[in-house]
Amino acid sequence: MERALREIGAARYHDKHPFHILMREGRLTEGQLQAWALNRYYYQSRVPLKDAALMARMVDPALRRVWSRRVLDHDGKAEGEGGLARWLLLCERLGLAREDVVAERGILPATRFAVDAYIDFVRSRSLLEAIASSLTELFSPGIMRERLGTMLAQYDVIDEQALSYFTVRLDQAPADADFALDYVKRHATTPDLRQAVCDALLFKTDVLWAQADALQHAYVEPGLPPPGAFRPEA
Amino acid sequence: MERALREIGAARYHDKHPFHILMREGRLTEGQLQAWALNRYYYQSRVPLKDAALMARMVDPALRRVWSRRVLDHDGKAEGEGGLARWLLLCERLGLAREDVVAERGILPATRFAVDAYIDFVRSRSLLEAIASSLTELFSPGIMRERLGTMLAQYDVIDEQALSYFTVRLDQAPADADFALDYVKRHATTPDLRQAVCDALLFKTDVLWAQADALQHAYVEPGLPPPGAFRPEA
Repeated sequence: MERALREIGAARYHDKHPFHILMREGRLTEGQLQAWALNRYYYQSRVPLKDAALMARMVDPALRRVWSRRVLDHDGKAEGEGGLARWLLLCERLGLAREDVVAERGILPATRFAVDAYIDFVRSRSLLEAIASSLTELFSPGIMRERLGTMLAQYDVIDEQALSYFTVRLDQAPADADFALDYVKRHATTPDLRQAVCDALLFKTDVLWAQADALQHAYVEPGLPPPGAFRPEA
Repeated sequence: MERALREIGAARYHDKHPFHILMREGRLTEGQLQAWALNRYYYQSRVPLKDAALMARMVDPALRRVWSRRVLDHDGKAEGEGGLARWLLLCERLGLAREDVVAERGILPATRFAVDAYIDFVRSRSLLEAIASSLTELFSPGIMRERLGTMLAQYDVIDEQALSYFTVRLDQAPADADFALDYVKRHATTPDLRQAVCDALLFKTDVLWAQADALQHAYVEPGLPPPGAFRPEA
């Protein structure tokens, strides 16, 4: 099953998406990066809700204890700490107004639909499928490392502090992914369950890909932001 | 509104229930205490799920940060710590087998229905109502203090360590209740919302009362445990 999961990542993780290829090659404009950071904020802001929804289904305190670290990693122990605060810092460095981002102004409807579908999946599917849907983190260190290099080199407004979200996640994501992978390997004890695990990961790659599609359509090609969506300054 | 909430507590909190009056007066048999501890375990085990479900609806990281302390208080930082572990200790001291309790064997169906209705309430109602439903903690220190005194005096198997769940909660509950009370006072800004807050507390007192009713019916008067339910040894 692990091989099947890794094949799904190799074929369908969003590092293959044209929008992320442009980012990796340093070919996005600052306006396009702003649109990415703003929309990704919506995803980031909902990840702890997704993890809390998962915890709300875990009857085993030991499992909740492990999973609660994810919420803590995002929220931090105090105001201004945690992954979400670090993402807001990146948004500000890219020139977005913090209050606009937090108010979720101008976020693409397609971003909301994809992210909300992810939360709904975690709430309504089996605990095994819900945990399996987090397995995209198996593939995230690669894309994060590439972004770090490119963004530091290509964009004057970005320094190492602005990218602290990624440097910290590079520490956290592998441990999170290893735990989830170990969990699904131990609990997917029949062919049907193993298929359900793979389907959950496929679903999650769709969630990420749909967000990249929406950014590409609105801000790159053809570049037609829908009514009410963020528009970069010319 | 605070006066209305306190009146609800004075009239309907389960410290007025015949079963809890018997407990306070030290007139429950050890078998009846076992039935209480076993059924209350189901409630205790679901409280962190309820709190995680609440967190899953909190978009504000600061609010999640405060509420996550409740989950941590129940689960502890490590195996054997936290309120749920302390409740299990009390169950063991009362002569229940730990594995039977954790497997939720013999719990009254009416206990499950009431507790599950509470979780459903927290998932489906407004965040304000969900937070308001926790306000029974305004009234819990009284009943907990009375239990501590009585149980130490009346039951040989009970010592201070066995009651550590209550001594720790006596520290935690007032802070939790104060936060929730302050939250509902700040957010219930219209008569309709204030009514919804009072209704949520009424609902929660019903949840607690129904559990006491089920214990009373099954184990005191008439004393007819339903099929499959725990039966104290003669």
